[in-house]
Amino acid sequence: MITTDILIIGAGPTGLFAVFEAGLLKLKCHIIDALPQIGGQLSELYPKKPIFDIPGYPSVLAGDLVHNLMEQIKQFQPGFTLNEKAETIQKLEDGTFIVTTNKGTEHHAKAVAIAGGLGSFEPRKPIIEGIEFYEDKGVEYFVKDPELFRNKRIVIAGGGDSALDWSIFLSDVASEVTLVHRRNEFRGALDSVEKVQELKHQGKIRLVTPAEVTGIRGDEHVEELDLEIDGAHTAIKTDYFIPLFGLTPKLGAIANWGLEIEKNAIKVNNALDYQTNIEGIYAIGDINTYPGKLKLILCGFHEATLMCQSVFNKVNPGKKYVLKYTTVSGVDGFDGTRKEAEKQVVKAID
Amino acid sequence: MITTDILIIGAGPTGLFAVFEAGLLKLKCHIIDALPQIGGQLSELYPKKPIFDIPGYPSVLAGDLVHNLMEQIKQFQPGFTLNEKAETIQKLEDGTFIVTTNKGTEHHAKAVAIAGGLGSFEPRKPIIEGIEFYEDKGVEYFVKDPELFRNKRIVIAGGGDSALDWSIFLSDVASEVTLVHRRNEFRGALDSVEKVQELKHQGKIRLVTPAEVTGIRGDEHVEELDLEIDGAHTAIKTDYFIPLFGLTPKLGAIANWGLEIEKNAIKVNNALDYQTNIEGIYAIGDINTYPGKLKLILCGFHEATLMCQSVFNKVNPGKKYVLKYTTVSGVDGFDGTRKEAEKQVVKAID
Ligand SMILES: Cc1cc2nc3c(=O)[nH]c(=O)nc-3n(C[C@H](O)[C@H](O)[C@H](O)COP(=O)(O)OP(=O)(O)OC[C@H]3O[C@@H](n4cnc5c(N)ncnc54)[C@H](O)[C@@H]3O)c2cc1C
Ligand SMILES: Cc1cc2nc3c(=O)[nH]c(=O)nc-3n(C[C@H](O)[C@H](O)[C@H](O)COP(=O)(O)OP(=O)(O)OC[C@H]3O[C@@H](n4cnc5c(N)ncnc54)[C@H](O)[C@@H]3O)c2cc1C
Repeated sequence: MITTDILIIGAGPTGLFAVFEAGLLKLKCHIIDALPQIGGQLSELYPKKPIFDIPGYPSVLAGDLVHNLMEQIKQFQPGFTLNEKAETIQKLEDGTFIVTTNKGTEHHAKAVAIAGGLGSFEPRKPIIEGIEFYEDKGVEYFVKDPELFRNKRIVIAGGGDSALDWSIFLSDVASEVTLVHRRNEFRGALDSVEKVQELKHQGKIRLVTPAEVTGIRGDEHVEELDLEIDGAHTAIKTDYFIPLFGLTPKLGAIANWGLEIEKNAIKVNNALDYQTNIEGIYAIGDINTYPGKLKLILCGFHEATLMCQSVFNKVNPGKKYVLKYTTVSGVDGFDGTRKEAEKQVVKAID
Repeated sequence: MITTDILIIGAGPTGLFAVFEAGLLKLKCHIIDALPQIGGQLSELYPKKPIFDIPGYPSVLAGDLVHNLMEQIKQFQPGFTLNEKAETIQKLEDGTFIVTTNKGTEHHAKAVAIAGGLGSFEPRKPIIEGIEFYEDKGVEYFVKDPELFRNKRIVIAGGGDSALDWSIFLSDVASEVTLVHRRNEFRGALDSVEKVQELKHQGKIRLVTPAEVTGIRGDEHVEELDLEIDGAHTAIKTDYFIPLFGLTPKLGAIANWGLEIEKNAIKVNNALDYQTNIEGIYAIGDINTYPGKLKLILCGFHEATLMCQSVFNKVNPGKKYVLKYTTVSGVDGFDGTRKEAEKQVVKAID
């Protein structure tokens, strides 16, 4: 059982920044995310694109913002349960919670902050008979660890940025990369399309278009795929099949937690502290709704901050909180580090 | 008469960022500030100190944050009335406002956002008989334009960062710099104290401690100051007297605008849009209060954003607003510039 003060569901920018604000209040956080990596939409959907409305950043790449947030929170040593979905929640008599993932990992926390964005990202799966049987047996919807594919034959399917970028990256790792797409045209960054073109000419990526994977064969693991190429049928030997057709966010199991839901979002008590109808469960960032709500990153930061204050009051009843400026009081990490402004001196001049 | 969409009172981080969010909605802003420079508390009180809780910045100097905000908003060409205090407000029949400063400058706007922080900064004045007479006639409480002191004799009084830093800076501008302080000890950054020590040894700053300025003389302009040095009395010829004893924020005239005030702050309608009891007047950042309010920079950013949405709806009745991500839609400046993410291409690979 993982134990923490605030269990955060969702490692997007909102969930990540909550770790910092909690840390200032000496509260520990643990984060669950369905994706194999942190950053939420920013990492999964547009890591290389600039955002122009993060206050104080005339422009920042989404991936860099995630990196900076991680840098900012690291001294508060958040725990992570990645690649697992929060599935059930149980409120104990003492008001604390146990949240269990789809893989059975249990988390015990004093408060739960749902920072689940648009929901947990689920891969769009191709419609191929029996594909479920091969999941984790050669069919991978995410590239969690590129090393899995070292010196293996892989077939990637898709026509967007993920398919292009992973084909490029894995062409240096796998023994054989085949990219299958049902059109000749790819949609992505010009750079990526041109790089795939080049690698094709160098023989490092085999391109099969317009084509579709229509069947999977193998005893205990993917061994062969059926391909339909421009009407004709053929088969191709491979160790892995990686369909990258994008992700769709699903509210999923959270919808059954007894929370008030409105248009796929969780209702919260407006400005007060972003608590839901269940005491001790908060919803922050894109996943919540209240009058005037804007689904923006900067709003999630504010909501996370007020949420942490509210948890502080809950966890330390009667203790009066006095707002401390980081500039004045510094930041004491759970790892023993301290960040602080240079102290003023009082010094005679002679 | 200056005309604008949103008149912002206060050029602190909240007011500055409001310009950006307004600009995304095609609303023009004009900012009034009592100080000669932008940045509010950050520029006036701790420009060289690091802030650790700006989301995405593990550390940023207050002065740099102000600089970055200015860089972020510049394409929306905000107007500035600096060095003037917003003093009176008049609501016209059509629901628009006229705000007039202590110097008589009039501003006409569709909405007013008070981002006045802790109030307008007023210098702490030394108690010296007749000092008011010499204000703007040789007595300066701020260094607005260092060039005013080029080749002049100046006397600076004070023992903190401002007194130290301006003595250092002006030692290269003025013909003679005298620093008067009632103790031998100065309180400031070690760097600054040591630099003053060095400049004193080089004869570029004359130090008079422990001492106080007790009188001012001159016909139409400061000519001579009376000094009490360790009990003894003397006089010193000078062109300028610059007392730098810090600033105190005063809510000032705004307290009489008919707004609901609670503990020196303006009450707003919570999360909704940070509007005050007077329709069309908003209060954002440190100056407002609502249940759960935290006087933090990041909260001001959020409040500014929701305020702008509300003004948009007011100014464009019936027009449905669809939230646009800057990453997806780019940022079109009022100066004709456009910032945008690199476009995806759709391109065949052969
Ligand atoms: C193309 C694009 C451009 C954008 N541009 C901008 C912009 O310029 N400015 C701006 O402010 N915003 C922009 N946004 C919106 C911005 O990305 C979101 O507001 C932001 O990501 C919300 O952050 P979050 O932390 O609330 O949620 P998310 O980033 O969505 O993260 C939520 C995380 O929670 C996880 N999760 C959900 N449910 C579960 C569960 N049950 N168990 C485990 N994990 C779960 C998800 O897997 C996900 O990783 C853009 C969005 C897109 C798609
Ligand atoms: C030493 C110190 C350290 C701090 N550290 C942190 C930190 O680490 N993190 C954090 O989030 N916050 C910190 N703060 C607080 C932070 O500075 C404030 O939250 C922030 O400045 C508020 O911004 P604002 O734009 O609302 O107001 P302000 O920055 O106060 O700006 C308001 C401006 O409005 C002007 N004004 C007011 N009334 C009038 C009028 N009638 N006419 C014309 N102009 C007017 C004032 O002159 C001023 O320039 C710190 C503050 C101090 C003093």
